[in-house]
Amino acid sequence: MKLRVIAPIVLSGTTPDSVEEYLRAAPPSCQVEVTFLDRGPASIESEYEESLAVPDIVAKTREAAADGADAVIISCMLDPGVKAAREHVSIPVLGPAQVSMHLAATLGPTFSIVTVLDRLIPPLLERARLYGLSDHLASVRAVEIPVLELWSNREQVVEALVTQAAQAVSKDGAYVIILGCTGMAGMARAIGKALRRQGYDVPVIDPTVTTIKVAAALVGAGLSHSKRAYPTPPEKPVFGYPP
Amino acid sequence: MKLRVIAPIVLSGTTPDSVEEYLRAAPPSCQVEVTFLDRGPASIESEYEESLAVPDIVAKTREAAADGADAVIISCMLDPGVKAAREHVSIPVLGPAQVSMHLAATLGPTFSIVTVLDRLIPPLLERARLYGLSDHLASVRAVEIPVLELWSNREQVVEALVTQAAQAVSKDGAYVIILGCTGMAGMARAIGKALRRQGYDVPVIDPTVTTIKVAAALVGAGLSHSKRAYPTPPEKPVFGYPP
Amino acid sequence: MKLRVIAPIVLSGTTPDSVEEYLRAAPPSCQVEVTFLDRGPASIESEYEESLAVPDIVAKTREAAADGADAVIISCMLDPGVKAAREHVSIPVLGPAQVSMHLAATLGPTFSIVTVLDRLIPPLLERARLYGLSDHLASVRAVEIPVLELWSNREQVVEALVTQAAQAVSKDGAYVIILGCTGMAGMARAIGKALRRQGYDVPVIDPTVTTIKVAAALVGAGLSHSKRAYPTPPEKPVFGYPP
Amino acid sequence: MKLRVIAPIVLSGTTPDSVEEYLRAAPPSCQVEVTFLDRGPASIESEYEESLAVPDIVAKTREAAADGADAVIISCMLDPGVKAAREHVSIPVLGPAQVSMHLAATLGPTFSIVTVLDRLIPPLLERARLYGLSDHLASVRAVEIPVLELWSNREQVVEALVTQAAQAVSKDGAYVIILGCTGMAGMARAIGKALRRQGYDVPVIDPTVTTIKVAAALVGAGLSHSKRAYPTPPEKPVFGYPP
Amino acid sequence: MKLRVIAPIVLSGTTPDSVEEYLRAAPPSCQVEVTFLDRGPASIESEYEESLAVPDIVAKTREAAADGADAVIISCMLDPGVKAAREHVSIPVLGPAQVSMHLAATLGPTFSIVTVLDRLIPPLLERARLYGLSDHLASVRAVEIPVLELWSNREQVVEALVTQAAQAVSKDGAYVIILGCTGMAGMARAIGKALRRQGYDVPVIDPTVTTIKVAAALVGAGLSHSKRAYPTPPEKPVFGYPP
Amino acid sequence: MKLRVIAPIVLSGTTPDSVEEYLRAAPPSCQVEVTFLDRGPASIESEYEESLAVPDIVAKTREAAADGADAVIISCMLDPGVKAAREHVSIPVLGPAQVSMHLAATLGPTFSIVTVLDRLIPPLLERARLYGLSDHLASVRAVEIPVLELWSNREQVVEALVTQAAQAVSKDGAYVIILGCTGMAGMARAIGKALRRQGYDVPVIDPTVTTIKVAAALVGAGLSHSKRAYPTPPEKPVFGYPP
Repeated sequence: MKLRVIAPIVLSGTTPDSVEEYLRAAPPSCQVEVTFLDRGPASIESEYEESLAVPDIVAKTREAAADGADAVIISCMLDPGVKAAREHVSIPVLGPAQVSMHLAATLGPTFSIVTVLDRLIPPLLERARLYGLSDHLASVRAVEIPVLELWSNREQVVEALVTQAAQAVSKDGAYVIILGCTGMAGMARAIGKALRRQGYDVPVIDPTVTTIKVAAALVGAGLSHSKRAYPTPPEKPVFGYPP
Repeated sequence: MKLRVIAPIVLSGTTPDSVEEYLRAAPPSCQVEVTFLDRGPASIESEYEESLAVPDIVAKTREAAADGADAVIISCMLDPGVKAAREHVSIPVLGPAQVSMHLAATLGPTFSIVTVLDRLIPPLLERARLYGLSDHLASVRAVEIPVLELWSNREQVVEALVTQAAQAVSKDGAYVIILGCTGMAGMARAIGKALRRQGYDVPVIDPTVTTIKVAAALVGAGLSHSKRAYPTPPEKPVFGYPP
Repeated sequence: MKLRVIAPIVLSGTTPDSVEEYLRAAPPSCQVEVTFLDRGPASIESEYEESLAVPDIVAKTREAAADGADAVIISCMLDPGVKAAREHVSIPVLGPAQVSMHLAATLGPTFSIVTVLDRLIPPLLERARLYGLSDHLASVRAVEIPVLELWSNREQVVEALVTQAAQAVSKDGAYVIILGCTGMAGMARAIGKALRRQGYDVPVIDPTVTTIKVAAALVGAGLSHSKRAYPTPPEKPVFGYPP
Repeated sequence: MKLRVIAPIVLSGTTPDSVEEYLRAAPPSCQVEVTFLDRGPASIESEYEESLAVPDIVAKTREAAADGADAVIISCMLDPGVKAAREHVSIPVLGPAQVSMHLAATLGPTFSIVTVLDRLIPPLLERARLYGLSDHLASVRAVEIPVLELWSNREQVVEALVTQAAQAVSKDGAYVIILGCTGMAGMARAIGKALRRQGYDVPVIDPTVTTIKVAAALVGAGLSHSKRAYPTPPEKPVFGYPP
Repeated sequence: MKLRVIAPIVLSGTTPDSVEEYLRAAPPSCQVEVTFLDRGPASIESEYEESLAVPDIVAKTREAAADGADAVIISCMLDPGVKAAREHVSIPVLGPAQVSMHLAATLGPTFSIVTVLDRLIPPLLERARLYGLSDHLASVRAVEIPVLELWSNREQVVEALVTQAAQAVSKDGAYVIILGCTGMAGMARAIGKALRRQGYDVPVIDPTVTTIKVAAALVGAGLSHSKRAYPTPPEKPVFGYPP
Repeated sequence: MKLRVIAPIVLSGTTPDSVEEYLRAAPPSCQVEVTFLDRGPASIESEYEESLAVPDIVAKTREAAADGADAVIISCMLDPGVKAAREHVSIPVLGPAQVSMHLAATLGPTFSIVTVLDRLIPPLLERARLYGLSDHLASVRAVEIPVLELWSNREQVVEALVTQAAQAVSKDGAYVIILGCTGMAGMARAIGKALRRQGYDVPVIDPTVTTIKVAAALVGAGLSHSKRAYPTPPEKPVFGYPP
């Protein structure tokens, strides 16, 4: 089984550590490939940047399907282009926010999301509402560290995430924690351990890693998104985009 | 007051009749300008085409603000780019689906949407959920006529819309009808009259025309979207888009 | 266009300043008229007082329609008599709570209401539920100043409202503020400015002023409430009320 | 224990049969008294008529408390004046719609309401939403027989109710039936029997009779509505009403 | 009328004081009988212990029906076996959590539950969701005193409950309090009095006592659960249970 | 990785074909073991039978954990004992209804469940409500074939399921189908193919097979249910059960 992770950003500097985590997340007999965008933003911290990523996400999804990938994971907590990409292929296309939230809802009565920036709270609130899970969402909290600084300050980031996660549990009543940025890949275990030391025994969901695993589950079960819900777009002139 | 309507498509043939309707919808002392995209699809009938429109919608919104427009209306029932565009300006940016659904909810206990194609039912169901109005939504129905054929077959289109709207009222329990495509501009009155002749006295909302009026109301009241919810995106490299 | 504002109280002393604000809120080419009740309470701070206002609100609404008014706004955040009045006329009848809450829901993911008295929190909670917007409502807060003292202490009132609004944003997670009493007319701008100075850039909705603007929008769009939802009451003997 | 039923109409002709049913509904050691209004409508079939009843309902509720009644039941499915009346007394004041819907929700996963007229469907939909039970409401159906004709045509009325109730079960998925007009008092048993003969073994709730029983339960348990939610209205001038 | 309370525990020591309260809760002309289990746990403080109680609850319910009881109340806030027991009998079977929550929803806009242990918060959150009342639930709070110590420390328990209930009102916005363990029977009055002394005039619901009263109301109204929703189980081999 | 499927019934006759399907569902490098109960019902078609299975499900779950299983799947669409079992172990314990419904919600805007018997419709409606997914549930339909006859009539069963699923799509608006009984294991592919032939291209979820795959995903991601939500039950005397 081949799983294609689309990191929906254009890579300008060094490859982020999260890529390592995605590769390591391959289930047995699965192969994970990670691809970046050619057109799009350097990171996604707004609805605007999310939108800039979508056209090339669709192109990269089609490419993945043409290459024989069995599923596509779009690695960003705003789930950019998931629906648009689904319309173009019949292999599963998954977004980590939708998958993580629904999975979290099976692990405890409520969950919180701990993300990078305050400014991402509204988009995450709205995605919870879109997915029908507002009632399960205890809170969204932020550590006020930009995406591109996550990798350089790992220890400090983990500490800040633990602080916010602990408050999500003790003050907001969360029973499950979702890491609110796919750039936090590989930190879940350390955060979970620190929370348990504080007496908070709650699962901590690493969104992309988890979505990779769920993608393999879907492929294994012969399932994909509903083509009736996401039918192939009509043939039609498009202007200003590479063909 | 200057209101800028962004028709989020690239115009290849003749200007659609709906433009006339938008201009005519200008409230007293208001001026409506209509602009089309340079990059994007010929029409929007899928999440994919929606996504192709967004980057240039944002550019056109910034342009509108720079030109001194007082508000922007993005004329498509999928509300493409509304959030992304809001992040870039402080003048109100409105989407007709969100505005029409919330307005419909003030006019009766439930509403239905009558749209062009079956394939748009899932996107409209999901927008109702996103806007928190699933419980008000009686149904989404479609007439199976593509957007680009709306203008050539006006009479037949109206008739088909009346048939579906009447069933939305009598079978699905709707008390308000929303036209589910901004290309249906100018048909609401005829549909309402035909429905009343059948004994169904329900308002029929023309989404863009109504959103133009509501935009003027917002400007008049000194209101706009919450900048705390839609803060300006961080400065950051973007690749593959015109600067 | 003629818009009739019904201030659903009996005026015993001087005309409140809010009337000035309502008149000033007239959109271009619109005329706003304000009328008070002959039968009813001196102010509305309870469900009981709300109910005392309704019979004359209906009479005044009929009068407005007979006078050729194009729409009626009932200026009280409990939306007294909106449904009863709608049954009697086909021109739009709007309540500021319903309109403001649905409009707020289009401006940000959540809103809070800041009202006069603690005792109005339950009625406002219940109106949010009735309108299907509980999930958007971050909180209702009160300044504990009675309606009839709003006008004499303007500066102190604004300050108290700013304090509560700031806490609604920072503690309760609100992204939009609705002033919870129509007697606060004319204070929104000052409150918004003060909030921005504290770093909270959120819209502040003046409910009646906004509803006047939306009423003009509805009239302009040829829309009114659903007569199927609010049909004319049957002819029937009524006892104890002036004919 | 003394229970006071307020039939919120002015009696012009003969006493309706439902009064008999209310008296008969007195639990052991309880006494039921029925009182009518002096000011108000002859029957309630609209929000307008509902509103005309409220001021005197409040007066009659105060009277009941002064007379030593232990609880008040306001016998109309629109629950007129329940909140206003609660503000004036500390004895329980109950509305049959609210009580019946919440009780129905404990007897099966969904319920339907079968009422007199189509025009009451929107008010009942909105009460279900206000009470937070829209998700439990399978449907509201009507037999198109006015309230004042219920008593003269009992057999035909029961038959029509059975037909609609059977469809509510078989087509709308209801598991419990609520009679949607308090004037249907005394018909529940016959309807239930007829439904069982058709193979539909569902409870049929007679709203006032049931609310009388629940009122006795509340009194017995020493419970009443929350005075914090329904505090006594402030002293204040009221114009145009008898003191 | 004979009401059978099933205390879903096996009694090993002395009879708890709550039994006295149940007997005293008998409405006029009613007789309350209390029965304990032969198989099951000593107290219920987990989903596991809840599940151990169910098989014998069903047996004891059948026994109650055979003995001519008119209704069954299963005295535990997790409502163990209510649905399973309903399938076996046509007399009403009621759980105090479901009844108390729905009743609370008729007494004020929101309610809180104050229970014994933190570990019961998730089960109570989930029951509120199951009953469709999450939106009415202000909070669940716990006093961290195990069930079996409730009876020995009555005064301290009441004090702890008052503290939590006061915070539920003042901090969480509750307007009604439900005691979250049936072992708190008989404490509601004292708690209510103490809350009123602190200025919080809210009803305090004693779940089993209240459910006994509501059971009598249902029987009096000729109502029971929907047999269509809870049909008799098919005849089928069962292994490992006494016949 | 070792996954333990608990088929929560006592096997009296031949091993059902579904066991074959469970074994075949093992992901690469995983081993699936299937175990049956010693105490419990022959099949589960009621809440009562569900409850009889739970005590031994807990025992079998503890056994699985002691045997070194990495996760437990309880193969019944009523999710019997999932919460009780979770309290006893820290390895994931999953129920196919909860997992399938949340997964379905990620594959399309709405889903329907097609189950064996009408009598299971209420339990499945209530589980959808419990899991917070009522708004996603288009309908529950039944084929009126008992569980124990599923295996003997495979072709006829598939045909009946296709008929109901097709109606769920065309009449109820479902975009995803969930097979509503774990005994339908192995039929999903045939049903999906038949639906596609009718023009309905929707995923068909085989609940246990899918839950096995998701269990492997969870284990792979290092996740389990929240122990804070499902803490270990207190040590306490239990009567009438084998130790």
